Amino acid sequence: MSKNNDIITLLTDFGVNDGFVGTMKGVILSINPAAKIVDICHEVPAQDIEAGAFILNTSYHYFSAGTIHVVVVDPGVGSGRRILAAASDKYLFLAPDNRILKYIFHTNETLTVVEVLNKKLFGRHVSQTFQGRDVFAPVAAHLSTGITLEELGPIIKDYDRGQIDRPWVTNKKIIGKIIYVDRFGNLITNINLALLTRREIRLTIGTITINRLSNCYAEVDSGQPLAIAGSSGYLEIAVRNGNAQQQLYVKRGDMVELNCQ
Amino acid sequence: MSKNNDIITLLTDFGVNDGFVGTMKGVILSINPAAKIVDICHEVPAQDIEAGAFILNTSYHYFSAGTIHVVVVDPGVGSGRRILAAASDKYLFLAPDNRILKYIFHTNETLTVVEVLNKKLFGRHVSQTFQGRDVFAPVAAHLSTGITLEELGPIIKDYDRGQIDRPWVTNKKIIGKIIYVDRFGNLITNINLALLTRREIRLTIGTITINRLSNCYAEVDSGQPLAIAGSSGYLEIAVRNGNAQQQLYVKRGDMVELNCQ
Amino acid sequence: MSKNNDIITLLTDFGVNDGFVGTMKGVILSINPAAKIVDICHEVPAQDIEAGAFILNTSYHYFSAGTIHVVVVDPGVGSGRRILAAASDKYLFLAPDNRILKYIFHTNETLTVVEVLNKKLFGRHVSQTFQGRDVFAPVAAHLSTGITLEELGPIIKDYDRGQIDRPWVTNKKIIGKIIYVDRFGNLITNINLALLTRREIRLTIGTITINRLSNCYAEVDSGQPLAIAGSSGYLEIAVRNGNAQQQLYVKRGDMVELNCQ
Repeated sequence: MSKNNDIITLLTDFGVNDGFVGTMKGVILSINPAAKIVDICHEVPAQDIEAGAFILNTSYHYFSAGTIHVVVVDPGVGSGRRILAAASDKYLFLAPDNRILKYIFHTNETLTVVEVLNKKLFGRHVSQTFQGRDVFAPVAAHLSTGITLEELGPIIKDYDRGQIDRPWVTNKKIIGKIIYVDRFGNLITNINLALLTRREIRLTIGTITINRLSNCYAEVDSGQPLAIAGSSGYLEIAVRNGNAQQQLYVKRGDMVELNCQ
Repeated sequence: MSKNNDIITLLTDFGVNDGFVGTMKGVILSINPAAKIVDICHEVPAQDIEAGAFILNTSYHYFSAGTIHVVVVDPGVGSGRRILAAASDKYLFLAPDNRILKYIFHTNETLTVVEVLNKKLFGRHVSQTFQGRDVFAPVAAHLSTGITLEELGPIIKDYDRGQIDRPWVTNKKIIGKIIYVDRFGNLITNINLALLTRREIRLTIGTITINRLSNCYAEVDSGQPLAIAGSSGYLEIAVRNGNAQQQLYVKRGDMVELNCQ
Repeated sequence: MSKNNDIITLLTDFGVNDGFVGTMKGVILSINPAAKIVDICHEVPAQDIEAGAFILNTSYHYFSAGTIHVVVVDPGVGSGRRILAAASDKYLFLAPDNRILKYIFHTNETLTVVEVLNKKLFGRHVSQTFQGRDVFAPVAAHLSTGITLEELGPIIKDYDRGQIDRPWVTNKKIIGKIIYVDRFGNLITNINLALLTRREIRLTIGTITINRLSNCYAEVDSGQPLAIAGSSGYLEIAVRNGNAQQQLYVKRGDMVELNCQ
């Protein structure tokens, strides 16, 4: 991993209604005043590991080499759950061992993963409920000052890699599901765009059918649903100038069927 | 425009529930690690160009010369809509050609406007749905490293200047409208404070009448409506310790009548 | 107070739906381009001084010495209310004289407090409604460039120290109250952890009783309520994987009774 990069990103479910995130930044800047902290998102739904994993996966690789990504969606805080630090060839990740790094684990071949155990790098008092402040923030700050992964704790192999929910693909149809709904109500599926070989499709979601892969929202009339190549590399369903989730009465986990013939 | 200013502001309707904004920051910092990114607001209501234009107009001029203001409220993303870069004597603006810069166009005499076409300055892959990441962020970052407006594309004159909704003024009355409602429920009108020549007024909004221009909220009792000189230079209607929008049953676009005699 | 620290924190009720906070940052950076601005929280409920005071108290001391904490929850803006600057041995605080600094006043023995009166340090035009932009931001920025407290105005003694709502303690029971509810619905009480001498307790809140002080959320079943040592040093009531406020039908100010025998 390349050194001398002071960027630390934060992705949490702490919200912005309390002082949690600001406090984490205070801790980081106290240890490394040169750190540049970037918020990825703090509105991951409370304890929603799946949503956190998705958001991380669509954002982390847009940062420069050496960036430290800190992910704290941590329902097991204070229990025996482990904290992991993982190094890919470009990035460092700090997160609970709860599958929130699952996309990282499945797309990076040469990861080194350690269990974070070195209490010297933690805050003076470690609370049972806010380890974002007492463990994640100080460890991330120390990493940004150049300490090595090995100083955090022992390399482990038995961390929870989790599972990626891939679509069911035959030569006649693809059955995927909605894995994320964004702020606009756009429905992101787990159907990789590489699986789509032509613009004519027959997509069924909820009670509606869409017959074409659109190039842009403006290709359909206002209020109409469309399928489009999503910015994260997956097929998305949207409603022009509208909210697909609300209009189509669907939710995360719901099925999407694509007929390919 | 003065150079050597690394401040890039972001004003979008991307919200803070996803990783959109964080990703844009990753892209910017990858190109210009010295950039200082300031969030103006990301909670512009989805695709609400009017609200975005208002927020920009009340904030941009508080930044130092050289600041690059990036505005992405972009319902036409992925369609043929143009992207504009505009230079005033103090600032650079980057935004879709959809009237979101209308206040800038109407208050800056000596603007240079170019159409952003130079694909070399875009991200490697340009998606149809997230050009905040793939076009606006990289172009803004390149601008902050000192490239000139002319390197972005040709100067154009036929951009959409939009229209400013001005009040109807006679020597007997002023008929304005509510152009923005802020988080406190304060109602901002389009009636410029310069039009008000005395403190005794007779203002009608919804079903109520206000007879005085107050100096501060505390001048009326708690729960009472008041008219006050707003911080953005326009007449505002508020309710002390309350929410004027909810209490007066009005909304953006509703009429405000001022009798001047 | 130690000098050469460019960190300025912001804690306000301005929300993130408008351009208020971004504008304050523009003002600060125009005066001190080297300032590092950290958001503590901008979603203090509108004009909720009590919540703002609590959030400040749980976050300010995690910042490095010299940090300037700016707190703007200011229902009296534009009236005769005073603006205070307070210096402890480590920090500077800038806030209205409305008790929002009450925890600071009660926990720092050697405070110097001045009334901010030096208009030379304000913005050119001071509005009646947005002094976050016109007074707090420029004064904070000037403080960060090294001006002294004495340049702001005269030392005063008669500022409003406010009152800390302490629990009622006998050798048989402790009667406290909920002083804050966080984003997860966790109920923070005013019962200092130092008052709890053993894990067996008998805590009554609303219609339920809790018999044990838990070490972590995972100690009880999902959906069950628990009492736990909160990260801010006070007793908290939570529901594992749930929202205690919603589930227990309680709110801020409600009583918590602890039987100690």
